[in-house]
Amino acid sequence: MSGAGTDHTRESITGGPAIILVEPQLGENIGMSARAMANFGLSELRLVNPRENWLNQKTEATAAGAVSILQNAQIFPTVEAAIADLNFLYATTARERGQGKEVVGPDHAGANLKARIAQGQKVGVLFGRERTGLENPEITHADAIVTFPVNPAYASLNLSQAVLLMSYSFMTAGGAATLPFERKTRWPPAERGTVLSFFDYLESQLEERGFFRPPQKRELMSRNLRNIFNRIEMSEQDLRTLRGMFVRLVEGPRQPQTKKRIRPPKSANAMPDQDGSS
Amino acid sequence: MSGAGTDHTRESITGGPAIILVEPQLGENIGMSARAMANFGLSELRLVNPRENWLNQKTEATAAGAVSILQNAQIFPTVEAAIADLNFLYATTARERGQGKEVVGPDHAGANLKARIAQGQKVGVLFGRERTGLENPEITHADAIVTFPVNPAYASLNLSQAVLLMSYSFMTAGGAATLPFERKTRWPPAERGTVLSFFDYLESQLEERGFFRPPQKRELMSRNLRNIFNRIEMSEQDLRTLRGMFVRLVEGPRQPQTKKRIRPPKSANAMPDQDGSS
Repeated sequence: MSGAGTDHTRESITGGPAIILVEPQLGENIGMSARAMANFGLSELRLVNPRENWLNQKTEATAAGAVSILQNAQIFPTVEAAIADLNFLYATTARERGQGKEVVGPDHAGANLKARIAQGQKVGVLFGRERTGLENPEITHADAIVTFPVNPAYASLNLSQAVLLMSYSFMTAGGAATLPFERKTRWPPAERGTVLSFFDYLESQLEERGFFRPPQKRELMSRNLRNIFNRIEMSEQDLRTLRGMFVRLVEGPRQPQTKKRIRPPKSANAMPDQDGSS
Repeated sequence: MSGAGTDHTRESITGGPAIILVEPQLGENIGMSARAMANFGLSELRLVNPRENWLNQKTEATAAGAVSILQNAQIFPTVEAAIADLNFLYATTARERGQGKEVVGPDHAGANLKARIAQGQKVGVLFGRERTGLENPEITHADAIVTFPVNPAYASLNLSQAVLLMSYSFMTAGGAATLPFERKTRWPPAERGTVLSFFDYLESQLEERGFFRPPQKRELMSRNLRNIFNRIEMSEQDLRTLRGMFVRLVEGPRQPQTKKRIRPPKSANAMPDQDGSS
């Protein structure tokens, strides 16, 4: 993602199916494919008869750091040579090819590839040329077909975007992938008792000011108000901040001469002296 | 995907969350994002303060036909203006930002966005600058954060790849997406009786030629052989082809003078006269 940092101290994930690009023409697509593979822990790129000078400035710029995948890419003269050591092969295509093969989406394919790798198989996925895709004899080599659930009116996926979806689906297969970070809160959720005393304070102040009108609606209005604040899932610190805010609204500006006032409670619902500025 | 055809006669899917790119710098990324959106049925692109001359040759080349999304893109001077009409907003980021917001993956986000749209809400997803991502005050605007399950050692997703994953996750949320085509077989699966008669013919020929040796292994060898062929899930046509192939191997070259031979059955297991060349 934009602005993403790469943490080289964290363990690299490598492995996955071989990604085999057949006669790719654009260096950008090769570079972006390498980057997408690196993003999702794939490492083995194979190129079948790529365009001359495929490894150019654009390839390296778009690979954006995933250069080791480019440097280790294997080049083959034919598809047959590129798949010779594989035990299982998918071919990607956006069109039905009349070969009667099993057709699966990337999620199914990712799970199957992961299971086969776990059994010690060598597996790969074949991607065709930018303009014309895979030829029928190339598709015949495959055990099954992967296709992507696209908008029927705009089905033309860029080569590197197809490689990205396959790589992403491989990594996330079986719910194995974890997000790079989780929600982090410095403060624990506020204790319910403190939340209740906050509501009591707030409502006593509102009561004094005639907010609950007509009186028979008081209970409903209180319930709605408490539910609004409960949706915040307040932390201890959130509660201190809000409490401080209401105290200031109720009491008006701080008296400049009193540095640390000790205020006697106004009522049983009085607030402790906290301004939430911590 | 490479070689994908776009079927303009099929109904276009349009809608989905607004994709909001904040200060994008590269025309390629805007074009590729528009293409990715079109692939998965999203149509509303918003750009906040994009680089001057963002709509250039590269933008249009990489959009690869998704130009209507580019042409309809709305330009805003600030993030605040770009999100003003939205009811719900996700921000994408690859790093924890210490704002304590809910953090979800693209699959969860896609399902939530779909549910909110179904309720009539206007929703959007914020994507940051290529190099530096979103700034903290921009993230504050969001209800929750989307991040992607990436290889920790190579977390830097290209902007348009992040847009693709979000768009894909939106389309596939709830298992709603369908593949553009299914396995298609012109012929129904062969009837079991025909398959059994094929096996009987094959095994009678093998028996004659002393294939089943030692005799006590005949049953096991037959079972294995039948299972190999049963894994093919033969169609009527597959069976005719295989039958024709074995007949040829057994009988040797066709006699050129006999155009249409009527061959008397050799045994109860004889094959019908079919050469599978249809």
